[in-house]
Amino acid sequence: MGYGAYQVEQERDVGPVERLILELGRLPGIGERSAARLAFYLLKQARDSGVEASLAFDLSKALVEVVEQVGLCSDCFNLSSTEKCPICTDTRRDDALLCVVETVADLRAIESTGSFRGLFHVLHGVLAPLDGVGPEDLKLDALVERVATGGFEEVILGMNADVEGDATALYLARILGSTRARVSRLASGIPMGGELEYLDHATLGRALLERREFS
Amino acid sequence: MGYGAYQVEQERDVGPVERLILELGRLPGIGERSAARLAFYLLKQARDSGVEASLAFDLSKALVEVVEQVGLCSDCFNLSSTEKCPICTDTRRDDALLCVVETVADLRAIESTGSFRGLFHVLHGVLAPLDGVGPEDLKLDALVERVATGGFEEVILGMNADVEGDATALYLARILGSTRARVSRLASGIPMGGELEYLDHATLGRALLERREFS
Repeated sequence: MGYGAYQVEQERDVGPVERLILELGRLPGIGERSAARLAFYLLKQARDSGVEASLAFDLSKALVEVVEQVGLCSDCFNLSSTEKCPICTDTRRDDALLCVVETVADLRAIESTGSFRGLFHVLHGVLAPLDGVGPEDLKLDALVERVATGGFEEVILGMNADVEGDATALYLARILGSTRARVSRLASGIPMGGELEYLDHATLGRALLERREFS
Repeated sequence: MGYGAYQVEQERDVGPVERLILELGRLPGIGERSAARLAFYLLKQARDSGVEASLAFDLSKALVEVVEQVGLCSDCFNLSSTEKCPICTDTRRDDALLCVVETVADLRAIESTGSFRGLFHVLHGVLAPLDGVGPEDLKLDALVERVATGGFEEVILGMNADVEGDATALYLARILGSTRARVSRLASGIPMGGELEYLDHATLGRALLERREFS
């Protein structure tokens, strides 16, 4: 049989199931075993529901639609299937208030609080010199341009409270300093429901440092 | 604005991104947050690679192909894109030896050892009366028929070493008792590299009970 026969067997082996497992395994956080488990689940589900009504079909359609229809909003770089996203085109929102965030996930987290009715700007990253991410890799020029011409009264820096977030916020505060907009940053301190006894030193230290006068 | 306007806003919100997150969230073990993270990753990846070369496209194609092309082998109920699976049609395999397993994942685990060259039979489940899974829900009739007519010399019961696996193996041993095939079961005992000191009682107890004469 020799090598030729072996190779034929190998090629035959990469059938539709193996291919699906390979593709699923390319998703972040999904290893080979999880990918196989998901593939078997999808096949079982399709056998039970019929191909046309299967989750695999629905998911396949959703995947194509999302990459074909969704791009970035030309104003704020939120995900959008139109040139400007629903938030930017919503006339009921406060266009004097801008919140700068690192990612679309952060935008959605802030939206889901229901406490913010201004506009957004998504940087799509943070400054991280060690990972080779500099100002030119973020949506920074557009932000500066937008704040310079947009008539915002306040720009809220909504970065994460970590080293990269701090550095990026500092950098932004500096380059936005020449505009007429006030620049603020999300408060850091004790999370709601937090107990002092169990808080980490850094958080408690920051809460002390940024204490507010009792009004 | 009232409820009408609110509803319009809600409907507009279920765009392609939300739909993908919903479909991804239907996969087992993937919650809403993981689904959103995966969706954002897929969109980012598609922006970087271009839509045609995107993982989302590849995955979409693999999903449709798998449910359209893959069914169960008519002999062993392994996943197969042909009527009989590559294992059943491989003439180099030992057709006197049959290994009965619970799932396709178990079949693949045994295949990947390289220590088995016989044929398989996938039950697609185990007896679990408490979950309402009885003999009629498994590929049992086909197994009995196959063993009665197939000329197998040995049937290896490859169930998991848990309560349902034990019960299913006992049941199978009984209904296959009337055929001419010998019925065996995978050995239970100390896993390779296992240290007695750290083994659970049940495993060590089984290893004692099923000790082998030193040859």
